[in-house]
Parts: sequence; C-alpha cells; structure tokens
Amino acid sequence: MSKLVIVGTVAFDAIETPFGKTDKILGGAATYIGLAASQFNVDAAAVSVVGGDFPQEYLNLLSDRHVDVSGIEVVKEGKTFFWSGKYHNDMNTRDTLATELNVLADFKPVVPEAYRNAKIVMLGNLHPLVQLSVLEQMETKPELVILDTMNFWMDCALDDLLTVIKKVDVITINDEEARQLTGEYSLVVAARKIHDMGPKYVVIKKGEHGALLFHNAKVFYAPALPLEEVFDPTGAGDTFAGGFAGFLAKSDDVSFENMKNAVIYGSTLASFCVEKFGTERMVNLKSNEVHKRLQQFKNLTQFDIELT
Amino acid sequence: MSKLVIVGTVAFDAIETPFGKTDKILGGAATYIGLAASQFNVDAAAVSVVGGDFPQEYLNLLSDRHVDVSGIEVVKEGKTFFWSGKYHNDMNTRDTLATELNVLADFKPVVPEAYRNAKIVMLGNLHPLVQLSVLEQMETKPELVILDTMNFWMDCALDDLLTVIKKVDVITINDEEARQLTGEYSLVVAARKIHDMGPKYVVIKKGEHGALLFHNAKVFYAPALPLEEVFDPTGAGDTFAGGFAGFLAKSDDVSFENMKNAVIYGSTLASFCVEKFGTERMVNLKSNEVHKRLQQFKNLTQFDIELT
Repeated sequence: MSKLVIVGTVAFDAIETPFGKTDKILGGAATYIGLAASQFNVDAAAVSVVGGDFPQEYLNLLSDRHVDVSGIEVVKEGKTFFWSGKYHNDMNTRDTLATELNVLADFKPVVPEAYRNAKIVMLGNLHPLVQLSVLEQMETKPELVILDTMNFWMDCALDDLLTVIKKVDVITINDEEARQLTGEYSLVVAARKIHDMGPKYVVIKKGEHGALLFHNAKVFYAPALPLEEVFDPTGAGDTFAGGFAGFLAKSDDVSFENMKNAVIYGSTLASFCVEKFGTERMVNLKSNEVHKRLQQFKNLTQFDIELT
Repeated sequence: MSKLVIVGTVAFDAIETPFGKTDKILGGAATYIGLAASQFNVDAAAVSVVGGDFPQEYLNLLSDRHVDVSGIEVVKEGKTFFWSGKYHNDMNTRDTLATELNVLADFKPVVPEAYRNAKIVMLGNLHPLVQLSVLEQMETKPELVILDTMNFWMDCALDDLLTVIKKVDVITINDEEARQLTGEYSLVVAARKIHDMGPKYVVIKKGEHGALLFHNAKVFYAPALPLEEVFDPTGAGDTFAGGFAGFLAKSDDVSFENMKNAVIYGSTLASFCVEKFGTERMVNLKSNEVHKRLQQFKNLTQFDIELT
C-alpha cells in the first residue's frame, strides 16, 4: 500500500437540481476525493483550508475514515469556500450561481511532514499554483502524480495550469475541457495533444457516457453504469478521481493494465455519488455495495468473442 | 446458419460533411445492412425498390456478396429514392436538404418465395406499413424480428409504427429517438417503456458514445471505438444493424449472451463505415481487418478485476 496525498477544495455547496435544492452542505474536491479513496483504507492525507465556520464533525467524517486532516488549515477568522450551482433538466449542464473564495483566496498549502514521501499525489481541483506548491513540497519524487482541473483555470490561469500539467503523470479532465485545452474536437486527437503537454496518461471523463483512458497508442473505455435517475452530479468527477487514485494507492501498481481497473473503480464509485445530494451517498457507502456494483460493471461490459 | 431477410431503402445519397461533398452515390438502409451482413457469408435476401436509373453494377455489389436481389423491384419508368443531407461540424447533427421518395411512394414489397421461411428478419428503415407487409408475408414465424426505424416515422406515422413495434423482438433506435418515442430522458426508463410496447430486446445507439442493449433488468454497454476522425456518419446505424443481424444469422443463437457479441460486431462494422464517404469503406472491407478491429474492441473494454 502507498501513501496518498490529496489536495483540493473543502467547501460548502448549495445545489439545486430538478429534484430539489439544498442549503449549504459539505462539498469540495478534496472531500469527495477523500471519501472515495477511503473505500480502499489507504493511508491518505488531505491538504486544504477551511474557515472558522466549518463544523468539526465534517472534518471528523474524513478522519474517521483514516484520512489525515492535519493538512487542512483552519483559518478561525475566515469563512469557508462556498459554491452554489443549479443544474439544468438534462443534468449535463449547470449554471454557477455563486463562488465565494473566502479563505481559498490566500491559501498556502502545507503538506504534513509524514506525507512528504507519499508515492501517490492526487492534485484535485484548485488554483494551479497551489497544486504546484504541493508538488514542490514533496521530499521524494512521487511514483505517480494525478491532476484534476477544470475549465475555470483554463480561462483565468492557463500558463500556470500548463506549468503544472507538464509535471504530472496522469490528467483527468472532462470532454469539453479536453476540447477547450487543445482546440481539437476529436477526443483521440485531443488526448494526443495533452500527451505532448506532459502527462503520459490522459483520462477523459464523459459523464453519463463513461471515461476514456489513453496511454500513447493504447486506449481503454469504461462506460458509465446506465442509471434510472441522476439525482445530483456534484462531485462525481472528484469521486471518480478519488476512486482512481485510491485504488492505485492500495494496489501499489501503476501500470496501464492496472489503471484500467482503477478507471472501473472510479466509475463505480461515481455511479453511487450521483444517487443522492452532495456527499450523502458516499458517506454511507458500504463495501459490499461497491462489490456488487463492480459485478454489475463486469456484466455490463464483458463479452466472450473468441479471437484466434 | 439461418436465412436472413433484409428490408429497407436502396437509394442515391448526396452527402456533404466538413471533409467534402459527393454527388449521387449508392446509399439506403438495405444497402448498408446487406453489405454489413455479407461479412458473415449468410444466406440473405434484400427486399426493396429502385428506379430505371439505378445502375446494375450497384445491384451486382450486393449479389456478388451473396445477397439475393430478386426481391429488389426495378420500376423501369420510375426514379430511385434520393436523399441529400449536410452534416454539421460536430458530425452528430445534420440537415436534410432533399428527400425525393420517387418509386418508394407506391412500393409494395414482395419477399422472394425461397425466403418466406427465413429465421431472421431485419426490418430496416422504411414506412412501418411496408415493414408490416413483409412480416405478413412470412410463411413460418421467424425466430427473431429486428426493427430499425427513425424519428421521421414517429412524426408522420406513429400509429403504424407502434403496430409494427408490437410485433418485433428487437428494436434498434438511437438515443434521441428513444427519448422522442417515450417522452423519457433517462435511457433506462425509456428502454423499459419500449419493452412495454413489445420488443423483448431494446438496442439504443448513441453514436460516438456506443450502444446499449437492454433485456428486462439486464443491460450491456458496447462503447464505440474512439476514432481520430469521423469522415461521414451516413449509414453507420444501418451498418450496425446489419452487423448485428448478420452475426446472429450466422451463429444461429439468439440468446442475450450472444446478442452482446452481436452488438460488438455491429459496433465494429460501424466503426469502419464512417471512415469514408458512403459505402466505400464497406465495399472494400476485408475479413482480416474486421478481425483486427475486434481485437481492438476487446483491448478497449476488457479488464480483469477478480471478484469473489
């Protein structure tokens, strides 16, 4: 088993979907990544920042699951990052109603000393310079650095983002973001261009259409489980990344063949995440449920054409 | 091996894509289905109609591949069905520029006598009453009837379409059409509603996102091969249906498990179809190329998580 460092936002979210709306609930990339990775009982630490308004019980949610929270700075006089969004009827598009950076605005991440030799680093969505600072604090070169990001940073911090992208092994990005980053419509061509920017592995997330893993000329396609109803897509991408990173940390094998399995685990966990508002489903997820759904994924995708 | 009856248009198409445009070239649902099914060397017959303007060499293309064309009526004084369309830059949407029914307007299909005991009937895109008439001519009950249709018939002949749908075992339909037919956004719910209309098996084609096969509570998801470039999507859905029907006819096994393989064969052949304008790629397709691409499909989708 490898140590895992997780960087990302810890936040309050207010979400509106066709099925209802929430007040401020627990959210943030590092939260979803941590909850997903905790399914693998890995030795993980989260690096983030919250304000004095952030309930201790939310931090306990992570530490109870063996995610070290000593790297989550609490700025007593500050307020926690807040995001609010409203999903359209198709659940694939959303409007951002509010983004209050608050304590994120001046955040200087500190990786706990015990984790500066972690083998796997998961850089969740945050300003690229924060992601970079975490990488620079690592005392031994990680075996695998995974980057998740979003279009927001392409719009407002592209040069910094390209600097980080150059330093990572894996990037996870959604289809529209891959197109924006490269100016290419074809995801095959986009993945090749992203390879050229640095990452040896490119994961393109296509939401209800699944996820693609590219490595040089090789490609793997994990479908998403067809769901009767998507209740709330918030955090699905982070949960995917957390499952991907957590599985790799647990199995201590970062080969392309094992990354296929990591993509399946990521997709499996993401399929739970969207069943309830916010983190609710992930907080209550049991390992036998995960096991059962992995079997569904096998049934969904495996066939037995014999080729000679 | 089972006999296969194929019904559908045989047409002239004029196609415009971002990569170029064609004059009137060979097209039509029965043409694409026949070319795809011919990869399996099945004993097939096409039922359709053309005008006196239709070149004999196009008919030879099919008969050279063991597709019986005696059920393709030639109306000497008439003109062949003509369709013209222009694809948008995303290749997923298109405008129809012209539809000239010509000899299709008064078409009365006649199934060749030797094929009225065929085990598999593939009802390709045509007026639902033409599809129905073919079914009524069968002297023994087919083992499997597969229906392909399109939104056009939902708009202008819905009652007739529902009558045919009630009589078939498998329907192949694209995602937008499944939503239109059922009024449901979720494809899982849409598939269930279509089950209730008659078909025990529902195949939903999602273009670049692959295809789903539903059978009661079971589901199988075949991704599409990620392609660098889609040159011309015309006929991809028909080619999928032809590969699906052709493989089932050849293997003489219409179980759900074998239908998974049929979906993979359909997807494999469709991935070739889009590489060139019109039927060009399918006409020149070699079996070793198909074999190689099937291997790519296996690599694309198969993983080895051991579940106990």
